[in-house]
Amino acid sequence: MAYTPTAAVLLIGNELLSGRTRDLNLGHIGEELAKLGIPVRESRVVPDEPPMIIEAVNALRERYTYLFTTGGIGPTHDDITTNCIASAFNVPLYSHPYALQKLKEFYDNRGEKLNDARRKMAEVPKGAELIDNPITSAPGYKIDNVFVLAGIPKIMQAMFAATKPYLVRGQEIISKSITCNLAEGVMAKGLTDIQDEFPDIALGSYPSMLDSGFRVSLVVRGTDIARLSDAQDKIRALIISNKGKILEG
Amino acid sequence: MAYTPTAAVLLIGNELLSGRTRDLNLGHIGEELAKLGIPVRESRVVPDEPPMIIEAVNALRERYTYLFTTGGIGPTHDDITTNCIASAFNVPLYSHPYALQKLKEFYDNRGEKLNDARRKMAEVPKGAELIDNPITSAPGYKIDNVFVLAGIPKIMQAMFAATKPYLVRGQEIISKSITCNLAEGVMAKGLTDIQDEFPDIALGSYPSMLDSGFRVSLVVRGTDIARLSDAQDKIRALIISNKGKILEG
Repeated sequence: MAYTPTAAVLLIGNELLSGRTRDLNLGHIGEELAKLGIPVRESRVVPDEPPMIIEAVNALRERYTYLFTTGGIGPTHDDITTNCIASAFNVPLYSHPYALQKLKEFYDNRGEKLNDARRKMAEVPKGAELIDNPITSAPGYKIDNVFVLAGIPKIMQAMFAATKPYLVRGQEIISKSITCNLAEGVMAKGLTDIQDEFPDIALGSYPSMLDSGFRVSLVVRGTDIARLSDAQDKIRALIISNKGKILEG
Repeated sequence: MAYTPTAAVLLIGNELLSGRTRDLNLGHIGEELAKLGIPVRESRVVPDEPPMIIEAVNALRERYTYLFTTGGIGPTHDDITTNCIASAFNVPLYSHPYALQKLKEFYDNRGEKLNDARRKMAEVPKGAELIDNPITSAPGYKIDNVFVLAGIPKIMQAMFAATKPYLVRGQEIISKSITCNLAEGVMAKGLTDIQDEFPDIALGSYPSMLDSGFRVSLVVRGTDIARLSDAQDKIRALIISNKGKILEG
């Protein structure tokens, strides 16, 4: 069997738990890592509190090939991710000269001051390698198997793209979907049979409620395109044999 | 100090980790529980795999006053939450007569069959109390301090509303926001001072990138409305003293 690296995503921030902010980062990382053959196996959301961040970082970095964190690397008092990463690795922080230079250039160009709060964004744990931030210059970084990224989706996405050269890839995980107008309960037995016939494929059944009624999307995920195609043929036949209509896929 | 109950949310489903589905349930539960004075302290997302679900259920139910799970209680092969909850509590499953009756009525009314797959949705762990599902009749349930809810947001929300009578409440957590056009770095020192002056309040600084430029929302959360108001006055003064513009709040 092929080598399968794995990943976890740690979303850091009170605002995600209070409902103020809906996370958009897990989905992006999950989709992008699937293309690289690195399934995201777990995600956690923790508040801006050092013991919880440190515990989650250590639990997840030990368990998975890679850990991606988002949020908490800005200039304000509630941006404590970097301190927590340093504690988790038991290494000191230092001001990274190149990061500081980039920040200085960025704020000089805007006619703004590189004050102490902004200087803080150049601090990284000892041993970290910078991850470029082409948007606001304050970098993310990699330390061991942990990638520390921003929380703002556009910046996070740019940083994530810059992590790719570091990642050992597996086989691309391909996902194909068929949507129909049948109820899940009608197809359930047939779907179980198909899943049993294709143990190498993950078959998911995802109902949704629209104003126009229920829809079910049947998603196959795996690495072998021919096998996925065979499974999809069986799903289409199952829908038709139950007098359902294929709406997509 | 007042009693503060706590909560965790466990989101179950491969589709959340692959990026196929963006979760909407954590935010809803977080917002609603804040009104009841029950802060959500942690959330986890796990795939449809028994060992991972069972481990997360046991970790979270022991650590927090309440645990809410979403997803995996439908009729298909990938709906394994109930089996995992029974394993986590080490109790058997049984077919709940009232749940079965409600399901029978629901499908009778629609002229559809209550087949084996649908009957599965009447099974609950021994000791569970049903949580009503007014939309599709397949119930959620409560077992000890764990509430097992559907994954479809509309159904989850209806079930969540039905859990409220079970919850011991704390003091309502009130959230107030001021949005301005200043960069975080300009205000960072002033915000630290305000946070230090109001240790009973959580002050969050949330930047966002719009096409029109950066915005920062300054959010205060706490239980004492007068203190929140005082903190907001200081935030407004900080913005004005830095020649910023208050856009909202």
